[in-house]
Amino acid sequence: MAGIYKVDDLKESAAAIFEAAGFKKYYSERVADNLVTAEARGVYSHGLVHLKNYVSFFGQGLITNEEPEIVRNFGATALIDAHHAPGAPSGEFAMDLAIEKAKEHGIGLTVVKNGTHFGMAYYYARKALKEGMIGLAFTNAGDMVAPYGGRTKQIGTNPICVTVPTGTGGEITFDAATSVQAFNKLFHASVEKRQIPLGWAIDPDGNETTDPDLGMAGALLPFGGYKGYGLGFMVNILTGILSGASLRRADNGSVAEDIHNCGFNFCAIDIKRLIDPDDFYTGEELFSKRVTGSPRKDGVDRIYLPGEIEVEKYEKALRDGVFLDDGVEGNLLELKKRFNIL
Amino acid sequence: MAGIYKVDDLKESAAAIFEAAGFKKYYSERVADNLVTAEARGVYSHGLVHLKNYVSFFGQGLITNEEPEIVRNFGATALIDAHHAPGAPSGEFAMDLAIEKAKEHGIGLTVVKNGTHFGMAYYYARKALKEGMIGLAFTNAGDMVAPYGGRTKQIGTNPICVTVPTGTGGEITFDAATSVQAFNKLFHASVEKRQIPLGWAIDPDGNETTDPDLGMAGALLPFGGYKGYGLGFMVNILTGILSGASLRRADNGSVAEDIHNCGFNFCAIDIKRLIDPDDFYTGEELFSKRVTGSPRKDGVDRIYLPGEIEVEKYEKALRDGVFLDDGVEGNLLELKKRFNIL
Repeated sequence: MAGIYKVDDLKESAAAIFEAAGFKKYYSERVADNLVTAEARGVYSHGLVHLKNYVSFFGQGLITNEEPEIVRNFGATALIDAHHAPGAPSGEFAMDLAIEKAKEHGIGLTVVKNGTHFGMAYYYARKALKEGMIGLAFTNAGDMVAPYGGRTKQIGTNPICVTVPTGTGGEITFDAATSVQAFNKLFHASVEKRQIPLGWAIDPDGNETTDPDLGMAGALLPFGGYKGYGLGFMVNILTGILSGASLRRADNGSVAEDIHNCGFNFCAIDIKRLIDPDDFYTGEELFSKRVTGSPRKDGVDRIYLPGEIEVEKYEKALRDGVFLDDGVEGNLLELKKRFNIL
Repeated sequence: MAGIYKVDDLKESAAAIFEAAGFKKYYSERVADNLVTAEARGVYSHGLVHLKNYVSFFGQGLITNEEPEIVRNFGATALIDAHHAPGAPSGEFAMDLAIEKAKEHGIGLTVVKNGTHFGMAYYYARKALKEGMIGLAFTNAGDMVAPYGGRTKQIGTNPICVTVPTGTGGEITFDAATSVQAFNKLFHASVEKRQIPLGWAIDPDGNETTDPDLGMAGALLPFGGYKGYGLGFMVNILTGILSGASLRRADNGSVAEDIHNCGFNFCAIDIKRLIDPDDFYTGEELFSKRVTGSPRKDGVDRIYLPGEIEVEKYEKALRDGVFLDDGVEGNLLELKKRFNIL
């Protein structure tokens, strides 16, 4: 099996599956758009590999049809309770609010508690681009990464996304997990029964492993050693801790961690309040051209801007379609069959 | 030679040197405080190794006695022109403004153009702590780091600092260059005639080197490969590009990069506008204890919180004094002698 699918067809199929599984229509469309956009950008670890999870998590009540609610609203900041709605529509709601606040105050920051899986952080941050703003997005996640010196899962893969518009309507985007690899890259390798490179993860005994299942049972490693550990730690503070997502209160008043409850953090910065956008774009272009024009190491064909590979993959996917491998296509077809979707 | 000095005595000596060199009194005190605070936290690369540079740069007119000026002021954001004043007082001015804006709007963001050497990013971010806020600080720097795949200097070491208060009056701090090591660690190794580990830098031919002078002539490597490259790139956007620090206009109207002109970015987030501080501190403590209590790899005695080592060094320095090695002590004594300081 395996095959090539049109982006719009995939969105339609995924939305139909989610709606059949019980998600309301708008949520179904937004989650489908989220997963297929990731797939089309080549960020397969946040793509349709999650189809089955969404259906299963909704069935278990872990993801809901609730509406996000603004709990605190002060100046350029707000706290939102997602009430376990899907990450896509509740995250977009929060990012849109950060953008509205940035229009009024020059910068806007929103944090979200009781969030669920939100996929690719760029999906939210990019909404700032069409307003001429810089977008930032962060989330915590279930514990998957060992602290520096540790050998068990204690920190999420906690990604960082910063995206900035260019003067030609394009973008430059950093979007990466603070682990060497996203957990979902192991999940994806496991679905496809592939090995992973050494250096991504350790097994439960603390030894580096090439087996994605042993790596998932053990822990991921932070990228760049203690620096990636520190960044992942601070992302958890800015998301789960700052939103209160990570706390659970018992009836007796005692408080414990709730590490399966995600917190998000979104920020928009309105460029024109700080600098003439023409000057911003001129500086960005001069810098970008110099960096990508750097003399290269032997064997290197090209120096990419951050996120440039994903943009090229996305443009190609819109033109030529998206390739789904056996595992992901199998899940898609199985779910379409289960819900009688043509 | 080499010896142990009291923190306050070092600040007094350094301030006297700067004042004798021509800096106004307040600037002399702030730069002295900046360098000695870094030295006392064990961040030697941003410490008194820079004494001579400040004297020399002031003499050349590269650092001035000008006052920072607010150029744009909109809502929760502002642009400041440092007019090449020293980094310490102009950075503190900008961070203080970000904190004032956070009091009013929940978050404050200031960017600075025409900045000079600002030392340790934490020096600024920490000002948020006593207000119960999260502090962030970023700067670009002269080009020292090769892009991923490149072999020449194109990007600064562009540090990221995030510091958060704890419920017991302490802090958790991430403060690190986006290169494997700060450029100043090579500078310091060169002053002390020490080798550097492989993996920090490449020589002008693109080969990894243990010679700090060849590494400074070649380029530093980004930490964690393409991820550190991407982060350093985005820090440059958020500092030099967003502030306009990196642009130079010729008389004929043409625009070029000005990579020796620093841009800073400071942000303060008022925790209490998003969450009850007690809940924030409770969550932070539960998370911190779990992470540092993680089972450890063989041979690891302790798992540290981000920045915990620096706090312990600082407390020890206040108690027991600061050790200056031959090179740094030699510079200090030479400058005291030059300016007839007792």
